[in-house]
Amino acid sequence: MVRVAILGASGYGGSELIRILGRHPEVRLVGFSSRAYAGRPLSAAWPQIDLNTPFAQVEEAVAEAELVFMALPNGIAMELAPRLVEEGRRVVDLSGDFRLPPDVYEAWYGIRHASPDWYPRARYGLTELFRDDLPGAELVANPGCYVTAASLALAPLVTAGLDGRVAVAAMSGVSGAGRDAGGTAFAEVNENLRPYKPAGRHRHTAEIEFNLARLRAQGRKVRTHGPAEARPLSFTPHLVPMTRGILVTAYVDPPRGVAPGELAELFGEFYAGERFVRLTEDLPQTKGVYGANTVWISPKLDERTGQIVVFAAIDNLVKGASGQAVQNMNVVLGYDEGLGLETHGLWP
Amino acid sequence: MVRVAILGASGYGGSELIRILGRHPEVRLVGFSSRAYAGRPLSAAWPQIDLNTPFAQVEEAVAEAELVFMALPNGIAMELAPRLVEEGRRVVDLSGDFRLPPDVYEAWYGIRHASPDWYPRARYGLTELFRDDLPGAELVANPGCYVTAASLALAPLVTAGLDGRVAVAAMSGVSGAGRDAGGTAFAEVNENLRPYKPAGRHRHTAEIEFNLARLRAQGRKVRTHGPAEARPLSFTPHLVPMTRGILVTAYVDPPRGVAPGELAELFGEFYAGERFVRLTEDLPQTKGVYGANTVWISPKLDERTGQIVVFAAIDNLVKGASGQAVQNMNVVLGYDEGLGLETHGLWP
Amino acid sequence: MVRVAILGASGYGGSELIRILGRHPEVRLVGFSSRAYAGRPLSAAWPQIDLNTPFAQVEEAVAEAELVFMALPNGIAMELAPRLVEEGRRVVDLSGDFRLPPDVYEAWYGIRHASPDWYPRARYGLTELFRDDLPGAELVANPGCYVTAASLALAPLVTAGLDGRVAVAAMSGVSGAGRDAGGTAFAEVNENLRPYKPAGRHRHTAEIEFNLARLRAQGRKVRTHGPAEARPLSFTPHLVPMTRGILVTAYVDPPRGVAPGELAELFGEFYAGERFVRLTEDLPQTKGVYGANTVWISPKLDERTGQIVVFAAIDNLVKGASGQAVQNMNVVLGYDEGLGLETHGLWP
Amino acid sequence: MVRVAILGASGYGGSELIRILGRHPEVRLVGFSSRAYAGRPLSAAWPQIDLNTPFAQVEEAVAEAELVFMALPNGIAMELAPRLVEEGRRVVDLSGDFRLPPDVYEAWYGIRHASPDWYPRARYGLTELFRDDLPGAELVANPGCYVTAASLALAPLVTAGLDGRVAVAAMSGVSGAGRDAGGTAFAEVNENLRPYKPAGRHRHTAEIEFNLARLRAQGRKVRTHGPAEARPLSFTPHLVPMTRGILVTAYVDPPRGVAPGELAELFGEFYAGERFVRLTEDLPQTKGVYGANTVWISPKLDERTGQIVVFAAIDNLVKGASGQAVQNMNVVLGYDEGLGLETHGLWP
Repeated sequence: MVRVAILGASGYGGSELIRILGRHPEVRLVGFSSRAYAGRPLSAAWPQIDLNTPFAQVEEAVAEAELVFMALPNGIAMELAPRLVEEGRRVVDLSGDFRLPPDVYEAWYGIRHASPDWYPRARYGLTELFRDDLPGAELVANPGCYVTAASLALAPLVTAGLDGRVAVAAMSGVSGAGRDAGGTAFAEVNENLRPYKPAGRHRHTAEIEFNLARLRAQGRKVRTHGPAEARPLSFTPHLVPMTRGILVTAYVDPPRGVAPGELAELFGEFYAGERFVRLTEDLPQTKGVYGANTVWISPKLDERTGQIVVFAAIDNLVKGASGQAVQNMNVVLGYDEGLGLETHGLWP
Repeated sequence: MVRVAILGASGYGGSELIRILGRHPEVRLVGFSSRAYAGRPLSAAWPQIDLNTPFAQVEEAVAEAELVFMALPNGIAMELAPRLVEEGRRVVDLSGDFRLPPDVYEAWYGIRHASPDWYPRARYGLTELFRDDLPGAELVANPGCYVTAASLALAPLVTAGLDGRVAVAAMSGVSGAGRDAGGTAFAEVNENLRPYKPAGRHRHTAEIEFNLARLRAQGRKVRTHGPAEARPLSFTPHLVPMTRGILVTAYVDPPRGVAPGELAELFGEFYAGERFVRLTEDLPQTKGVYGANTVWISPKLDERTGQIVVFAAIDNLVKGASGQAVQNMNVVLGYDEGLGLETHGLWP
Repeated sequence: MVRVAILGASGYGGSELIRILGRHPEVRLVGFSSRAYAGRPLSAAWPQIDLNTPFAQVEEAVAEAELVFMALPNGIAMELAPRLVEEGRRVVDLSGDFRLPPDVYEAWYGIRHASPDWYPRARYGLTELFRDDLPGAELVANPGCYVTAASLALAPLVTAGLDGRVAVAAMSGVSGAGRDAGGTAFAEVNENLRPYKPAGRHRHTAEIEFNLARLRAQGRKVRTHGPAEARPLSFTPHLVPMTRGILVTAYVDPPRGVAPGELAELFGEFYAGERFVRLTEDLPQTKGVYGANTVWISPKLDERTGQIVVFAAIDNLVKGASGQAVQNMNVVLGYDEGLGLETHGLWP
Repeated sequence: MVRVAILGASGYGGSELIRILGRHPEVRLVGFSSRAYAGRPLSAAWPQIDLNTPFAQVEEAVAEAELVFMALPNGIAMELAPRLVEEGRRVVDLSGDFRLPPDVYEAWYGIRHASPDWYPRARYGLTELFRDDLPGAELVANPGCYVTAASLALAPLVTAGLDGRVAVAAMSGVSGAGRDAGGTAFAEVNENLRPYKPAGRHRHTAEIEFNLARLRAQGRKVRTHGPAEARPLSFTPHLVPMTRGILVTAYVDPPRGVAPGELAELFGEFYAGERFVRLTEDLPQTKGVYGANTVWISPKLDERTGQIVVFAAIDNLVKGASGQAVQNMNVVLGYDEGLGLETHGLWP
C-alpha cells in the first residue's frame, strides 16, 4: 500500500485520478488539494462524487503522502516538486515542467525554469517507450496528451528508420483544454470543428520531436532523457465537438518503398506484449477507448503515393494524462502495471 | 422565372434544395420526386416542412420543369439526365456520374458508365474555379463535398506552381453520409471520432486530383473538363460527431521557399471579388459557415518545416452540395450568382 | 424603410437580430453597441460574420436610429428605454424590465424598478395573443423564451375555461443562458441533462401566470397589460445538451371531461390564420423549427387520466427572442408581419 | 464463483453486462449469444472490445452456464426462460415478459403470454424496493429503465400516503431505444428534442402504476408481485440528444399540506443505508451517474402551489438495465450487493 495525495484535485486531471485511484487496490488516498475549493467537500467541485472528504491546501494535502500526483498548471511543479522529493516523497507531475530540456522548455513555454538542475533527475513517463527508466524514479514527468498518441503512432517507424517527412493532424475533445478553459462554451463548440495553434505553434510539437529524436538516436535503451537532436515535424491540433478522445492521423513519407505486409509486422513486433496497445486492421475510434488506458493504433500504406498513414486513438484524460500517470506509478513502485486501469472503453 | 423540379427530394440534398430554392426569387418549384414517399406530403418526410405538396414519381415531378436538380444515388443520372436534356430540360446533377472521365469514373465507382459520350457535354460546376464553362450549360456535374473544400484550398497554390507533395486530412459531419446511411446512430457517433476510407480509398481523391491536374495544365481557362494527367495525392476523411460541416487541412510541401506574406497575397489575388470565399488570418470554423454557401479559407506557412498548411471550411450540404448547385444554376441561367444563397452562418 | 440600431449586439440575442434584420427588406442597420467590443469590428465577436462595421458605444449606436432593439441584461432598459422614447425613437426591449407590473417585477427580479410609471406605456409583444396592442407602440416588452412557448401552448385552454391545475415541464438548449453564462462548458453539458430553478423559482413562472390571468380575465381584447389576478402554476426548466430549442410539456387538469376531437378543434380555431403557429397531430420536435420563427404545437388528451398534455416547440433565439422581436417591429410599423422571418427550420 | 452466460450480447444491454461482469470477482463469463454475430468474435460487434471470444447460438452459449442474463426483445424470454430454469439454471430477464401480470402484459404489449403460469414464480427486481423477494430466486424480472427512476422517485411518497394526482415527465438518452432502433440517426437527433408515446401510451406507464399500487397496498413487505389495483398516472417520455441517462421529473399533488423539512426527512429514512441511492439538496444531473449504478434523487416542495416535485437521475443502461440486473444477481446469490458495480460516474 502507498499513501497518495492529488494536487489540483478540482481539475479534470485530478478528478480522473480520483476515479482511477479510487479502485486501485494498493493506493490509499490521503490528500486532495485545490486552491479554489480548499475547505469544501469534494462534492462541491464534482457532481459525480458524493464524498464529504474536504479539499485542502497543498501543505495539508501532502502531509501524510508518500507519493504525490501533481495536476497543476505549468510553472508550479518546477518549484514544488523538488521540495517534495527532498522531503522523501515521490512525485508524478502531469505538467510540462520536466518533460523537456530547460532551454527547450523555456523557448516553447516562455517560462523561466526555476530548477533546471532537476531536469536530469526526472524520468519521462511515456511508459511503453521508456519503461525501463522508471523503476524507483523519484520524479516522473508525465507526457502530454497529443504527445502520447503521436509518439506511440510514430515510434515503430522511427526506430526502423522509416520516418522521412512527418506531418501530424491531431483532433481532440474539449476536455483537453482543462476545466476553466475559455472558448469551450457548449453553444459555440457543438456543431463546430476548428483547428488551433496551427503549423508548429503548439508546444506539444517540441515534445513529439524530442521523443522521436531520442528513439532515433538510440531506440528504447535506458537513459535519462538528455538533450537530443530534434528534426522539425509538422503538427496541427483540431478541436472536435466531443468531451473525451484524441485521434492522431500521422502522414509519413518513408525514405524507401514499403511492402504491403511490412507495417503490420513492424508494429506487431514493436508492441509485442503491451497490454495497453491495441493493434488492428480496423481503423481506431476514440469511443473505443473511452475511459480506458488503451492506445488503439492502425498503420496503413497508401499504395498510390507510397506514403504511410498511421492512426492512433486514446482517451486524452486516461492514457493521455491520469491513466498513464497511474501506469507510471505502478512501474515506479513495482506494482502490476495494470492495477486500477481498464483496457475496455465505455460503449455506447 | 424558371420552373424547377427536385429529384430525390426526400434525401438531405433534396431538403436543402427545398430550403434554398424556397426563397429564390426567380424559381418556381413544380415537382418533387421520392421513390419512398411518392404520393405522400413533403411533411411526411420532413419535420421542418409543413407543406401538403405531395412527392411524386420522377415522370410526374419533371413534367412541368424547365430545370431539374438530381439528388439521387450514383448510377441513375447517367441514364436519366441525357433523356431529360434531350427533352429540352437543363439538369444540375449532384451525383458523381458526370464529374470524371468515364474510364476514371468506372475505376473508382465500380459502375459501368451508361452514357460515356455525354461526359464531354457536361460542365463541371466548381463555380469559383470553372465559372466560365457554365453559362448556358445543359448539364452540370455538381462537385463532391470534400472535393469542393480541398480544391478551393489548393487551387491558388497549384496555379502558382507551389504544390509539391500534398496530403489532405478532411473532417466531416455525418450528414455527408446521407439520410439512410448505416453506422450513423447517435449513440455510436456522439463522443466518437474516426477516420474511414483512409489513404486514397475514398472516391473524392480522384476528383480532387483531376481538378488540380486541370488547373495545373491550363489554369481557369474555358474548356470542357477533358482528360488530364493527375498526380496522386494523399486523402483521408474523418467522421466527426456533428451534423453539418467539413474542414479540410491540406499539407503542401512547396518546391521552393515561400515568403511569410506571400500566401495571403496569392490567395487574395486568386479569389479577388468572390463573394462566397472568405479569406482571413483567423482560422476557419465550420460553424462560421453553418447554413451558408461560403467557403472560409486560411493558408499558413509553417516556418520551422517550410510546409504550407491550408485550412478550408464549408457547410457540406450547402457549398458542398445544394448551395453550390443553386449557385451553378444562377450562373447557367444568367441570374445574379447569389440569389437564394446566404453568406453568413447560423451562430450559435 | 426604417433605420435600426441593436444594443447588446455581441450577445446571442444581438447576433440573431443581425442575422434576421440583415435580410429584412425594410430595415437599414445603422448601429451596433457592445461595451466589450466597442471600436472593434463585428467579426471580432462573431466568427460567422465577416463585416468590418465596428461595434460602438450606446450613444453612437443609436444616433441615427429610428427604432432600437435592446438586447441587454435586466435593469438597463428601465433607465435607457424611456430616454430613447422621449428622444422620438421606438424601442423593442428583449429584457424583463417592462414585462411585469413593477411590484411583481421587483418581487421576482430583486431589482428596484427605476421607471414604474413607464410600465403602462409599454406594450407586451406576445404577438399571436396580444397583437392588437402593438400598432404604433413606442415601447414593446418582448416576452421571455419559456413564456412564449408556455403561453402559446396554454392560451386556447385558458380562454376556453379548460385550465385547472397546470404543471409545466420546460426543456431548453444552453444558448438560452446567454453567451457569458457560467456552467455551460461543453465538457460538462454534453451527455448531461439537468433541471434548474425548480418548482416555481424561475422568473418566467410569474410572466406565464400573468399572461394566463390576463387571457382569463378578458381574452385577447385590446388593453395595456395592467395588473391581473394570477393563479400560481408549477414551472420547472431543464437544461438539455443542445444549443437551440425549447420544448414545453404542459400538464393541465381540466375542470370537466374533454371529448377526443375537442382539442384539435379548439386549437385550430384559436390559431386560425396564424402563419407562425404550426398545429399537427404529430408531436413537435425542436429541430423542426430550428432557426425559424414558428411555434409548433400539439395538444393531446390522456384518456386514462382525463388530463390534457400540450406540447410546444420553438427556437428560443428566434420565436423565443429575436425573431418575435422583429415580428413585433413589423406589426408596430405596419409592415407585413413575416418580413425577414422564416417558417421552415434548418434540417438536418 | 458462478458461471454466467449473456444472451443478446450484441445489443447495448449485453455489452454493458460484459463491461460490468468483466470486473465482477465472483463471475466467470462462459457464453455470449447473438443471432446476428454467431460465430464471429466479440470485437466484430463491439469496437471497445478486442476479444476473440466468439458469439454463439443460444444453446451453445448457455451450455456451461449456471446463471443466464437474457437481454433479448420482448416475447422471447416467456418461452425460453422457463426451459432454462427447468434445466436448473437461474435467469435474470431484462425484457418485459415477466414484469406484469399476464393479462396486463398482453393488454400493453399486444403479445399473447406463452407462460402465464410462470409469472407467480418470477421475482421483480427493483432491488431497493423489493429486495427481500430476491434471495434464491430462480427467475428475476428486471425492471424497465423509466420504471426504475420513476418508482424510486415516488416510492417514499406513496408509502407515506402522500401521492395524489401524479404526472411524470421523463427524459432519456437515445441508447434506451436499443442498438437497432430507427429514428436515432445522429443528424436528426443532435440539436433535437422531442416527446414520444405521450400521455400514457408508453408501456412503462403500466409498470410504474403497478409498482406504486403494490407499495400502496402493503409497502415493502415480502410477497410475489401479484395482481394489485393500479391508479392511472400521467407519463410522457422525451428523447434527448445524448447517449446515456434518464431524468425523471415527477409532479405530485399531495392530499395534505407538506412541511418544508418533511420531504428530506421522509426520503432520508426511506432510503437509509442504500448505497446506490444518492439523496441531495442539489438537483440531480444525469452525467453525475454516468456509468454508475447510482440513482440520484432530490425531492422539492413548490411552496407557491403546494405541489411536490421529485427529480431522479440514473444511467439507463446501468441502474436502468444491466447494472441493476447484476445487483439483483448479487442479492439472489448472496454476494455483496455492490460487487462489480460503481457508485461514481465518469466526469467529464
